[in-house]
Amino acid sequence: MKTQIKYFEAISRCPGTKARTGRLRTPHGIIETPVFAPVGTQGSVKTLLSQDLEKLKIQLILGNTYHLYLRPGVDVIRKAGGLHKFMGWDGAILTDSGGYQVFSMEPLRRISEDGVEFRSHIDGSLHFLSPEKATEIQLALGSDILMCFDECPPYPCTEDHARRAMEITTRWAKRCQTAFHAEDRGGRLLYGITQGAIYPALRKESTQQLLDLDFPGFALGGLSLGEPHSATLEMVALSTELLPEDKPRYLMGVGTPEDLWEAVEMGIDQFDCVLPTRNGRNGQLFTSTGKLNIKNSPYREDFTPPDAQCDCDLCARYSRAYLHHLFRAGELSALRLASLHNVAFLIKLMRKIRQSITDGTFLKDKQKFFAAYRNQGD
Amino acid sequence: MKTQIKYFEAISRCPGTKARTGRLRTPHGIIETPVFAPVGTQGSVKTLLSQDLEKLKIQLILGNTYHLYLRPGVDVIRKAGGLHKFMGWDGAILTDSGGYQVFSMEPLRRISEDGVEFRSHIDGSLHFLSPEKATEIQLALGSDILMCFDECPPYPCTEDHARRAMEITTRWAKRCQTAFHAEDRGGRLLYGITQGAIYPALRKESTQQLLDLDFPGFALGGLSLGEPHSATLEMVALSTELLPEDKPRYLMGVGTPEDLWEAVEMGIDQFDCVLPTRNGRNGQLFTSTGKLNIKNSPYREDFTPPDAQCDCDLCARYSRAYLHHLFRAGELSALRLASLHNVAFLIKLMRKIRQSITDGTFLKDKQKFFAAYRNQGD
Repeated sequence: MKTQIKYFEAISRCPGTKARTGRLRTPHGIIETPVFAPVGTQGSVKTLLSQDLEKLKIQLILGNTYHLYLRPGVDVIRKAGGLHKFMGWDGAILTDSGGYQVFSMEPLRRISEDGVEFRSHIDGSLHFLSPEKATEIQLALGSDILMCFDECPPYPCTEDHARRAMEITTRWAKRCQTAFHAEDRGGRLLYGITQGAIYPALRKESTQQLLDLDFPGFALGGLSLGEPHSATLEMVALSTELLPEDKPRYLMGVGTPEDLWEAVEMGIDQFDCVLPTRNGRNGQLFTSTGKLNIKNSPYREDFTPPDAQCDCDLCARYSRAYLHHLFRAGELSALRLASLHNVAFLIKLMRKIRQSITDGTFLKDKQKFFAAYRNQGD
Repeated sequence: MKTQIKYFEAISRCPGTKARTGRLRTPHGIIETPVFAPVGTQGSVKTLLSQDLEKLKIQLILGNTYHLYLRPGVDVIRKAGGLHKFMGWDGAILTDSGGYQVFSMEPLRRISEDGVEFRSHIDGSLHFLSPEKATEIQLALGSDILMCFDECPPYPCTEDHARRAMEITTRWAKRCQTAFHAEDRGGRLLYGITQGAIYPALRKESTQQLLDLDFPGFALGGLSLGEPHSATLEMVALSTELLPEDKPRYLMGVGTPEDLWEAVEMGIDQFDCVLPTRNGRNGQLFTSTGKLNIKNSPYREDFTPPDAQCDCDLCARYSRAYLHHLFRAGELSALRLASLHNVAFLIKLMRKIRQSITDGTFLKDKQKFFAAYRNQGD
């Protein structure tokens, strides 16, 4: 099986690192990498509209197959003309496979070689996801980048468990590939996902098995689940060591501003994370001088912008005192403003990271960022 | 005492009605009347940003003295440079006096000739509002249009109670006026509020007493509290009969699209109401063909815009099915989109009403509106 040529090209590299910029072509536009994708679990990046995402020049968002399959249901989205039309979003969409969600529903699911039977968290109804079905759903959603249905073991997990999960993930990856390649997919991409928890030998074996299947892109799954940070970084480093130069590498579920710098340095091209919106709803802001929790009392009479170096709809107009007030008073606009700011922060951070790679100043710029970015109390 | 000349002028009238258009000058711009003001209780029109209000060309919003006094507190808003700066809003702001709120806190407040002692709904702390203090707070907030501190009796109330409330309201109106006129207020306006519940004689007496005090504008208070609709309209009709042509008339707490047409026809110039945002948060939309509740199942697969005649950020991009999904899935953007649409609907309705007065087609346009506007089930 031959993967497409030129859907991805690495453009510039920064000496002394594995960091690279690139261009990734999708049916909904060319994505400049490294890229961060905000998460639109249920067809909406929480508190934000597609208009907001456009204004922030967001290139890629993530949709959750598990959630969209259960609600509104694939039938509704198909009738709407796909997820892009349904949610009024013309940029690229990556969908996960649903594997992560169904495997995290411990007592509510049953695994077999064929797939996973699980109960809906909404109404308890019984459902079944298999590699074929997960692929079919993602195709019906109209996803630009699809993910293989994988078994994502929890952290911690035994080496035995991790091996079994890794092996079934490979067998399922083949089935996803077969289902996906049943017809021409017009430039859409199906990525493989590596597993192996934090066992280096397993992670390498998983990566090698998926490499043999020749996917057009590779995701690192099963990380950022609570394992030590050093273990995450070790897995990233050994993975990018094995992965080919001419294909995109996607670290799922990451992250923090710090992690984005670290993982890009190791050669990662794609990220997604709920952090900017989830933290935003909790009042925690990323700023150029570090994290801060706007609900804390010192901000009651702080009339400076949340981040003096930011020009988002929050920082351009409102003070820390105002946002503090909105949170304290339970006003919904607080959640929107903080989410918007955090997403804008990560999007601008990725732009800066890309520029620093192009300019060959990545390491210097990373150091500068870390020197300024201090935790100001959660 | 002489009121200002030319801060308000009626411009056109529609034959066969008391409807008129006018211009009302405030320190934050000239307002075209009749005008509808969305309510920004706590320094935020719920779910909307000042940017959204600007985009909708909103001329006037309402702030609640009671809420802002308790949280964030007058000290914070004063230090921010006033409510306009605090909330990043450069249009006009009208503040109520806090009377309505403290009088509705039945067991938590004690009335004397001097004022009202009450407990905060937030932390139970003890506070005192008087005509002087309510005026002082509104001045500190930087309000463009201030309201007299009044006693607003509940519905139903006895004639005795209504008389006592009406009489103290007049005595307090004098005290507010004295407090307000202690210095030059740079074009800000203090309105009197009439009371009298739905007793025609009391309502007339109240109106006459306030007319004698020569306020620059008059509000009709204590209506839309659950009384029969015919009683509301009767009170409006007898009030506008007495009120002078050269001063603005403000019907507080109204309303529905239907009520706006009715009251404008009777000569009302100003309105405020929480309805568009409150209904929006409940999933109830105003549309050109009537009200609808988007949470109802028929909308699950309705891919038409919420209102085909609307070009707001909701209707221009999203379907009924999408908004239905956002509500069902508990996404916060649902509340924002529905609130935004409803506010846009009333703002555009008022623009249309003004145009129909100018064109002399008010009665025909009103009839056309009512013919199309049908309840489609709440």
